[in-house]
Amino acid sequence: MLKDVQGGHALSKDQYDALLPELRAALLDAQARLRKAGFSVVVLINGAAGAGKSETVNKLHEWLDARFLVSESYEEPTEEERSRPEYWRYWMWLPPAGRIALFSGSWYTRPILDYVWGRSSEARLAEEMARINGFERTLADGGTLFVKLWFHVSKKVQQKRLEALEDSPATRFRVAKSDWKNHGRYGEFVRVTEQVLEQTSTGAAPWHVLDAADDRYRHVKAARLILDAMEARLAGRSRSHEPERLAPIPDPHTVLDELDLSLSLGKSEYEERLAAAQGKLFRLVRKLQKRERSAILVFEGSDAAGKGGAIRRITWALDSRSYRLIPIAAPSDEERSHHYLWRFWRYLPRHGRVTIFDRSWYGRVLVERVEGFATEAEWRRAYQEINDFERELTEAGVILVKFWLHITSEEQLRRFEERKQDPAKRYKITAEDYRNREQANQYEAAAAEMLARCSPPTAPFVLVEANDKRYARVKVLESVVRALEQQL
Amino acid sequence: MLKDVQGGHALSKDQYDALLPELRAALLDAQARLRKAGFSVVVLINGAAGAGKSETVNKLHEWLDARFLVSESYEEPTEEERSRPEYWRYWMWLPPAGRIALFSGSWYTRPILDYVWGRSSEARLAEEMARINGFERTLADGGTLFVKLWFHVSKKVQQKRLEALEDSPATRFRVAKSDWKNHGRYGEFVRVTEQVLEQTSTGAAPWHVLDAADDRYRHVKAARLILDAMEARLAGRSRSHEPERLAPIPDPHTVLDELDLSLSLGKSEYEERLAAAQGKLFRLVRKLQKRERSAILVFEGSDAAGKGGAIRRITWALDSRSYRLIPIAAPSDEERSHHYLWRFWRYLPRHGRVTIFDRSWYGRVLVERVEGFATEAEWRRAYQEINDFERELTEAGVILVKFWLHITSEEQLRRFEERKQDPAKRYKITAEDYRNREQANQYEAAAAEMLARCSPPTAPFVLVEANDKRYARVKVLESVVRALEQQL
Repeated sequence: MLKDVQGGHALSKDQYDALLPELRAALLDAQARLRKAGFSVVVLINGAAGAGKSETVNKLHEWLDARFLVSESYEEPTEEERSRPEYWRYWMWLPPAGRIALFSGSWYTRPILDYVWGRSSEARLAEEMARINGFERTLADGGTLFVKLWFHVSKKVQQKRLEALEDSPATRFRVAKSDWKNHGRYGEFVRVTEQVLEQTSTGAAPWHVLDAADDRYRHVKAARLILDAMEARLAGRSRSHEPERLAPIPDPHTVLDELDLSLSLGKSEYEERLAAAQGKLFRLVRKLQKRERSAILVFEGSDAAGKGGAIRRITWALDSRSYRLIPIAAPSDEERSHHYLWRFWRYLPRHGRVTIFDRSWYGRVLVERVEGFATEAEWRRAYQEINDFERELTEAGVILVKFWLHITSEEQLRRFEERKQDPAKRYKITAEDYRNREQANQYEAAAAEMLARCSPPTAPFVLVEANDKRYARVKVLESVVRALEQQL
Repeated sequence: MLKDVQGGHALSKDQYDALLPELRAALLDAQARLRKAGFSVVVLINGAAGAGKSETVNKLHEWLDARFLVSESYEEPTEEERSRPEYWRYWMWLPPAGRIALFSGSWYTRPILDYVWGRSSEARLAEEMARINGFERTLADGGTLFVKLWFHVSKKVQQKRLEALEDSPATRFRVAKSDWKNHGRYGEFVRVTEQVLEQTSTGAAPWHVLDAADDRYRHVKAARLILDAMEARLAGRSRSHEPERLAPIPDPHTVLDELDLSLSLGKSEYEERLAAAQGKLFRLVRKLQKRERSAILVFEGSDAAGKGGAIRRITWALDSRSYRLIPIAAPSDEERSHHYLWRFWRYLPRHGRVTIFDRSWYGRVLVERVEGFATEAEWRRAYQEINDFERELTEAGVILVKFWLHITSEEQLRRFEERKQDPAKRYKITAEDYRNREQANQYEAAAAEMLARCSPPTAPFVLVEANDKRYARVKVLESVVRALEQQL
C-alpha cells in the first residue's frame, strides 16, 4: 500500500485558507450529529517518527469541538499498565458513544518495533495481527467506527523532519535516540508496515495511507478522511435494536443432563477437604505477587445454585486485601455507553490480586440472549469476542478459572421456598426468579451452547454438580487450588 | 481516650458461638436496608501493628455480604498515586450510596508516623488534623456515615502478637522491620494517638477505641459498633431533599457591576499579545513534568460569555498530549451516587498534565443553588467544602487558575441571536438559555457570593471583562501564563 502513495501532494497557503471554513464547519456539524448517533469514533494516527502525527493531532483538536474529544498518546506503558494485560490501557480510554477518540501511537507500534528489531518472528507478527483484527472487529461490531490513518514519508523527508525538530529548542525533546536508530532501518520498516497494513486492512477497519510530507495537505487529508467516514456512517440506517424474545423451546438434551447431580459429601470429609484446600489457597494467592501473576475467578450457574456460598468459602480463606469481589448486575449508564466488555476490563486485577466475578461477561450469551436484550447477531458473535477476550487474559498471564454451578429444577424450587422462609435470605428472592423458571429450557439451551463454545483448553469451564452444597464447594475450592498449582 | 480503655475484655468460645447467629443476621439485614437508604458507610480500621486489623477485616468480610462491600488497604502509595494530591487515592475508593467500605490503614497513618519519627512538628500535626476534620465533615455532610475504630493493645500484647506472626511461615511476611522499630517507640505512639483521637473525634465522625487483645472480643465489638451506627442512621428520618426554588430577587449590586465591560483590544494588538502568550504557555507547560507539578484551569461565567473560545485559544497552544478538557454537564448515575466532589477528583491531572474544566464544582453554588437542585444547607456549606478541596490541590502543588467571564445582559442577548443565525453554532442555543435569563439576578447574586467566598489568596478568581472577546481571551491567556511563571 505504501508504494501506491504518490508523493508530492501539497496545498498552497491560499488553497488551504480557501478550503478551511467549509471543512471546519462540516467537521463540527458531523461531530454534533455524532453526539446523538449512539456510536463512537476511534481515529488512529500512526506512522513513522517525523511524519507529523503530533502536529496533525493538535490541528484536529483545534478544528473539532474539544469538549467531546478524547485524546491519548501511547508511549511506554506505566507501572499500572504493565501490571495488567497489554490492551487494558487501550480499553480504558475507549470513548463512550457520541465521542471521538484520537489515539496517536496504538496497538500497532509495539509489534512492528518488535519485529524490526528481531524480538519476534514472522509467525509471531502474523499472530499479533490476527489478534488485532479480532480486537478491532469486536469493537466495530459493537458500533465503533474506525478511521485508521497511516502517515507515510520518504526516507529523505523523514531525515529532514527529524533534523528540523532537533534544530528548534521547542521541539528538540521530541526526537529520541531510538528515532534515529529506526531511521537507519527505514527500508525494513517500510517492508513490515506494508505487510501489517495488508493484514489488518479489513472491511470493519480499513487503513488509509496518506502522503504526509506537506503539513497542510496532511492536516486537510486526515480531516477529510475522518469526515467522510463519519458522514457515511451517519447517513446509513441506524442499526435496529429491536429486542426479539425467543419462543419457548422444548426440553433440550445437553451436556448438563449428563451431570451426576446425586454426588455428595459427608460432613466430616467436607470439613477436612475444605480446610485443606483453603490453607493451600491462601498460600498460593500469596505467591501471585512474587510471580507477577494475577487470577480471575468467574461464577455462573442457575439461580440459587449456590454461587454466593461457594464464593464465600474462597474469600474467607483469603486476606481481604488480596481480592475484589465484583457482582455483575445491570450496567451503569457509563457502562452502557461503552462496549459491553468494557466494564470487565475496568476491574481486571493487577499483579498479586484476584478478581472474583459473581456473574460475568457470559451474561451476554445467557440472560441477554434469553431475555432479548441482545439481538441474535450480537449474542452469536459474542462467543468469539469472549474467547478473544479470555485469550488476552491468559496470554498476559492471568490465571482464569470459570465455573458453571448446576442444580436440578426441583432442587431450585426447594431452595426458593426455603429462602422465602428465612428472614435473613428473604431479600434474595423476587418474583423475577420464579418468572425465569418458566424459561428454564431457554436458559439451559443457552448455557449448553456457551459451555460448548467457550471452553478452549486454556480456559475451560469447570462444571460443578451443585445439588449438594458441600460437594459443590469442595469441588470449586479444589479446582481453584489445582489451577493455581499448575500455573504457579 | 486510650487510657480509658479497660484491658482484659475477652469472649469465650461458647459466648462467641452463642452471640454470632443473631449478630450476623442483624448485620446482613442492616446491609440489605442500607442498599436502599441512599447513603454510604466508611469504616476505618486503624491501630498499631499487631492489633489484629487484618484479621478483623477478614472476619467482617465473612459476616457481611461481600458483594456490596468495598475493601481497601492503604500502604505505600503507588507511582500513580504519588503523582496526584494525597487524598486522591481515598476519594477513588469511596463507596457509592448503599455500600460499605472497609479501609484498613487510612489518612491518619502518615501524619502519625511523620510526627513520631520527627518529620513534622506539633503545629504541623494540628494542621493535618484540622484538614482531616474538614475532609470527614465534607463527606459526612454529603451523607457518608463514618465508623472510625481504633484497635488498642498494650505494649506487651503488641510484642507477643508480632512474635506470633513471625513464628508462622504463613504470616511472617506481614511483620516489617518498621513494625519493630515502631514498637520500640510504643509510648510515644500512645501519646500522639491520644492527641490525634481527641482532635478528630467530632460529632460527624467520632472515634471508638476497642480493647483489641482478644480476637473474638475484637471481632464482635467491631461488628457491633458498625451495626449500632448503621441502625441508628437507618432508624433516623431520611434527610429531606425537597428542592426549594428561590424567589426572584431584585437587582443586586455586586462586585460584578464594578467591572469595566467596555475594555477592548484592537485586532493587531490582540494578535500580537495572544501569539506571545501562547508561545510562553507552550514552554511553561512543558516544564510541568520536570518540576513534578500539574495545573488545573477552571472556567465559569454567564452563558455565551465566551468560555469555549477562550479555552480554545489555550488548547491550540498546547500539545494535545499535555491536557485534557472536561466539560461538566449533568452527572452520570455513577457520579450521582457519590459525593458531588467525587467526579472532579476522578479527573485530577497527573504530574506534567493540565486539566481544563469547562464549568466545574462551582455548579454547586451556581446552577444547583439557583435551580434548587441543592438544598440551602447543601449549597451554604459548599463554600467551605470547595475551599478545602482547592487547598488540597494547591498544597499538593497543583497550579490552580480560576476564571469568571462576565458580559452584560444586552451583550448576552445579542450573542444568543447571533448564534441562532449561524448554522455552525445553532446547536449551542436552547430554550433553557433564554429561560435562565429570567433568573439573571439570581445567577448574578450567586456568582457574587461565590466570588467573595471562594477567592483565597492561594486560589483567587480572575474576573474577566468579556464583552470584547479579544480583550477577554488575551486576559485569560496572560493570566494563565503569569500564574505558571510565578509557580514554576
